[in-house]
Amino acid sequence: MSEHLRKYVRTVPHFPKKGIMFIDITTLLNHPEAFKETIDILHRKYADAEIDKVVGIESRGFIIGAPLAYKLGKGFALIRKRGKLPYKKIIREYELEYGKDAIEMHSDSIKKGEKVLLVDDLLATGGTAKAAAELVEDVGGIIHSIAFVIELPDLHGRKKLKKYNITSLISFEGE
Amino acid sequence: MSEHLRKYVRTVPHFPKKGIMFIDITTLLNHPEAFKETIDILHRKYADAEIDKVVGIESRGFIIGAPLAYKLGKGFALIRKRGKLPYKKIIREYELEYGKDAIEMHSDSIKKGEKVLLVDDLLATGGTAKAAAELVEDVGGIIHSIAFVIELPDLHGRKKLKKYNITSLISFEGE
Repeated sequence: MSEHLRKYVRTVPHFPKKGIMFIDITTLLNHPEAFKETIDILHRKYADAEIDKVVGIESRGFIIGAPLAYKLGKGFALIRKRGKLPYKKIIREYELEYGKDAIEMHSDSIKKGEKVLLVDDLLATGGTAKAAAELVEDVGGIIHSIAFVIELPDLHGRKKLKKYNITSLISFEGE
Repeated sequence: MSEHLRKYVRTVPHFPKKGIMFIDITTLLNHPEAFKETIDILHRKYADAEIDKVVGIESRGFIIGAPLAYKLGKGFALIRKRGKLPYKKIIREYELEYGKDAIEMHSDSIKKGEKVLLVDDLLATGGTAKAAAELVEDVGGIIHSIAFVIELPDLHGRKKLKKYNITSLISFEGE
């Protein structure tokens, strides 16, 4: 864990709706040393791992995943919301608290058997990350690990992702 | 210019609608050396510039802007679509071909007088970039430069941005 980074994260009450405590990493990204340290810690963790590609989940996952791919010297592939990717793609729908959502990947964005580091900013219930990991597998990739900056352990996201290796840097409990 | 990177960019006809030729940089991002080279060229260009902060425009601007901020050792600030940012923010509306769109920044994401490198993936008509540059100014920043990976010169985006320093790496004409 990297709890010394916690002080750069801001909590914003009642966003996006009343009663929700939003974990805002824009203050961490804004801070040159904290942002650099976040990427460097993840880089050190995966520098010697057998990873072929980094995949980021739209859109805050791009802000962590793209610098990490760059620093690791790997290609970067995108998981986006429905309708944003222009080429041949695979879609995966998943359940939200109310209703459904869908994410997509280009079919040619991962070669069969490539080992993938999947990146997002925050692990909450794990619904999006699980759908994203399965989408990577649909496209032919193998999930090496999934990395998050923040984890909300009260929401038990790891349970939904128990077949995968999970890393998170900062944990927010009881919030 | 960095025209040798052009071969990593894919054009997809009829996306998002019939008659539009979409410039798809996901193939460039996917390629480890091409992605690294893209960031390195921009880094070399701005390594000695007086830049305090990098600002990326959602969401492909995050994929270029965040690694560049990391490599430059600067903080990264976000310009997002309406309703995504949780804290106190400033909004700017701008005209699209049909209708209006809006982008937002956190009011505290730039300190007064900070010099900003604004980053997006593609310069087309320049409408979004102009609104984004003005939003940075609204928040108190000074635009040092605006950097794009791709430019479509036929759409005359530079005309709309003539008060700013513009860089682009690859130019697609007549498409």
